[in-house]
Amino acid sequence: MESQSQFLPANPESVFTYGAPLLKYGRGAADEIGFDLSVTGAKRVLVVTDAGVAAAGIPQRVAERIKEFGIDAVVYDGVHVEPTDASLEHAIAYARDGGPWDAFIAVGGGSSIDTAKAINLLTTNPGELMDYVNAPVGRGNTPNQPLKPLVAVPTTTGTGAESTTICVLDVLDLKVKTGISHARLRPTLAVVDPMLTVSQPSGVTASAGMDILCHALESLTARPYMAYERKRPEQRVPYCGSNPISDMWAEKALMLMSTSFRRAVLDGDDEEARASMALAATFAGLGFGNAGVHIPHANAYPIAGRVKDFHAKDYPSGEPMVPHGMAVSLTAPEAFRFTFDTAPERHLRAASLLSPAADKPNDLSSFLPDVLTALMSDIGIPNGIAEVGYESSDVAGLVEGALMQQRVLAAAPCEVRDEDLASIFTRSLTLW
Amino acid sequence: MESQSQFLPANPESVFTYGAPLLKYGRGAADEIGFDLSVTGAKRVLVVTDAGVAAAGIPQRVAERIKEFGIDAVVYDGVHVEPTDASLEHAIAYARDGGPWDAFIAVGGGSSIDTAKAINLLTTNPGELMDYVNAPVGRGNTPNQPLKPLVAVPTTTGTGAESTTICVLDVLDLKVKTGISHARLRPTLAVVDPMLTVSQPSGVTASAGMDILCHALESLTARPYMAYERKRPEQRVPYCGSNPISDMWAEKALMLMSTSFRRAVLDGDDEEARASMALAATFAGLGFGNAGVHIPHANAYPIAGRVKDFHAKDYPSGEPMVPHGMAVSLTAPEAFRFTFDTAPERHLRAASLLSPAADKPNDLSSFLPDVLTALMSDIGIPNGIAEVGYESSDVAGLVEGALMQQRVLAAAPCEVRDEDLASIFTRSLTLW
Repeated sequence: MESQSQFLPANPESVFTYGAPLLKYGRGAADEIGFDLSVTGAKRVLVVTDAGVAAAGIPQRVAERIKEFGIDAVVYDGVHVEPTDASLEHAIAYARDGGPWDAFIAVGGGSSIDTAKAINLLTTNPGELMDYVNAPVGRGNTPNQPLKPLVAVPTTTGTGAESTTICVLDVLDLKVKTGISHARLRPTLAVVDPMLTVSQPSGVTASAGMDILCHALESLTARPYMAYERKRPEQRVPYCGSNPISDMWAEKALMLMSTSFRRAVLDGDDEEARASMALAATFAGLGFGNAGVHIPHANAYPIAGRVKDFHAKDYPSGEPMVPHGMAVSLTAPEAFRFTFDTAPERHLRAASLLSPAADKPNDLSSFLPDVLTALMSDIGIPNGIAEVGYESSDVAGLVEGALMQQRVLAAAPCEVRDEDLASIFTRSLTLW
Repeated sequence: MESQSQFLPANPESVFTYGAPLLKYGRGAADEIGFDLSVTGAKRVLVVTDAGVAAAGIPQRVAERIKEFGIDAVVYDGVHVEPTDASLEHAIAYARDGGPWDAFIAVGGGSSIDTAKAINLLTTNPGELMDYVNAPVGRGNTPNQPLKPLVAVPTTTGTGAESTTICVLDVLDLKVKTGISHARLRPTLAVVDPMLTVSQPSGVTASAGMDILCHALESLTARPYMAYERKRPEQRVPYCGSNPISDMWAEKALMLMSTSFRRAVLDGDDEEARASMALAATFAGLGFGNAGVHIPHANAYPIAGRVKDFHAKDYPSGEPMVPHGMAVSLTAPEAFRFTFDTAPERHLRAASLLSPAADKPNDLSSFLPDVLTALMSDIGIPNGIAEVGYESSDVAGLVEGALMQQRVLAAAPCEVRDEDLASIFTRSLTLW
């Protein structure tokens, strides 16, 4: 492993950027969206959700409350969980046929929020989906027209998609996960109402919570902004590396989770724990949405994409699936052991924030991995990738899949070679 | 003094809001504004500044760099330091005559940024200045039309005006300081380039730094959002009380200042200290811009407004003046002694963050006042309001002036009676 100092460039970056949506947080916040839309002059809006969330009645209730402010609100519940190019194109066609819309409201998890970002982009800017998907998969065009207001209302505590500028999708023909990334995709208003998450089942709280945790830990340990070459303004991207602001959000998210994560998994009716987790999800999103994520997220793509026949507790039983947050977490302990030497004090501080009572082991590089595996074991996350169906002979394929995520791996604090990934996957077969 | 719990209402607020401009921070950030404007499609922009800042050449350099991106940039240098209704009306008339403008760029201290907010408001919305000034002084109308992009480029490390939704002005006929406050006034982009502050003289760094410090301390100790009655959405204002996000910004600002404030005053060429102070100013602005400020800021209005013949080091020698930050700081130690019982742990934490090595005194309510006066003494702030020209017989008038700031006093964590203010002013005649 190379140390971070080897990456300090000749002409280091001196500038970082920070963007965030307006935020309205608290019990009852989701009932006020009609007012927030009315001040924009909106008359007709589209509520974007998936069938599962719709079955719980939340988007319909949001739409009814919006209508009380004299705004016509139509519900589209065709979001595909883990959006694909096909599902996004379907949603865009629906919105184009039924438009024009003055604003969009996403109600659900990251899939609904990301789908609404794509709808917003493709109903305000010319062209087709693949024109805007990151190159080389798509043409990587920049939207030139302003987008409409987008209100994001998360119903799971995990993705932080309400804070970010990216829309993640599977391109089915190419069997590749990629995204659309531009500052204009960021929601204009995030409405975080912890009461919407109270019905989230325990297994979902555990997996989605590991996503939050990894957002915070990866942004805290991402390559610092000044370790990049100085950029010209037109080269800046929303993910600019770890910086004093993203660090602050990440650390605060870890502090909130240290007292609430186990409680929220154990007792879904613990409203205080739910409120802290909802806040932590948003805080972590505000961190990684500006800093970036790295190895655990890159590894999650093949872990989820190459699933054999694993079914996760509390998730739909139809298709085999490793939930995103679970997939992210399974190599996190070993990834942070690998990155430890790039910034020991950051790894140690993260472990202490997450588990203030834990004792430091003699081998300090084990501190954060130990704290993570203790937590994962307590909340019912599988004990490594073997438990979700992978064996040693799968490692080469997993490495190949992770290496396709070069945009993500570039945010790691050091070079990540094939053999480094192979070692991380192998050590992650069984974690404890 | 009443304890905070007596203020917990029957139907407490459950929602808080948080807004912030996009932020670009770092050395060289001010050179990129032309690019940031070009993506909005701007062709012709107005740079708003005061004659003092213009004399240093900064706004002209910003304008030249903007022109390199094919955008016409005109400099208006008629900002009045401490804006008045007359100075704002003059600036608005200039902008209306010379318009239309696609965007505004404020380069300077809070006065330039606030003047640009007023120009932006009155060149995009109908009516006159007093239509929008807070009632009862003005008519308190709400702007119904969207404003243009406003880029704020602070050249002093103090006001945090780049983060806030308020424009402060003196109404000359009424001899009263008031403001215009609306979420739409918030700058769209804050460009914080610490190199612009290197020439700020020591006395200005000290006074403006006390403004930063009081922003952080007052927002941290402001009435918590849940201690207000539940609001309807149309009743929400940008200042919603202390909350987990404003607390985080305030605490981080205190941490930055604990290591940089004395250094920046002592040695203006200490770039690391300047960079930390610039970041602290923005962080504190992001805190109080959402939480509010209270007693020290209310008291600053009459301390500055009733000035006799005090002249501050490193400020223009023409008219007598108590600089804003100095005026804010002079009653801060005694104000925080008064509010101590409403939230002892917050006052103690603030003192520890600001001065980690300080020992707690036996009387814990003295801890924050002691830490503050030690700092003020070190950086050359006057030893109380007597040193800027007030005596016991002036206290009644100062109290009367502070009581006119009911909007500000309402953010205090407890009721503030006439006799409470009289006691704070009297104890602040000589601080140490």
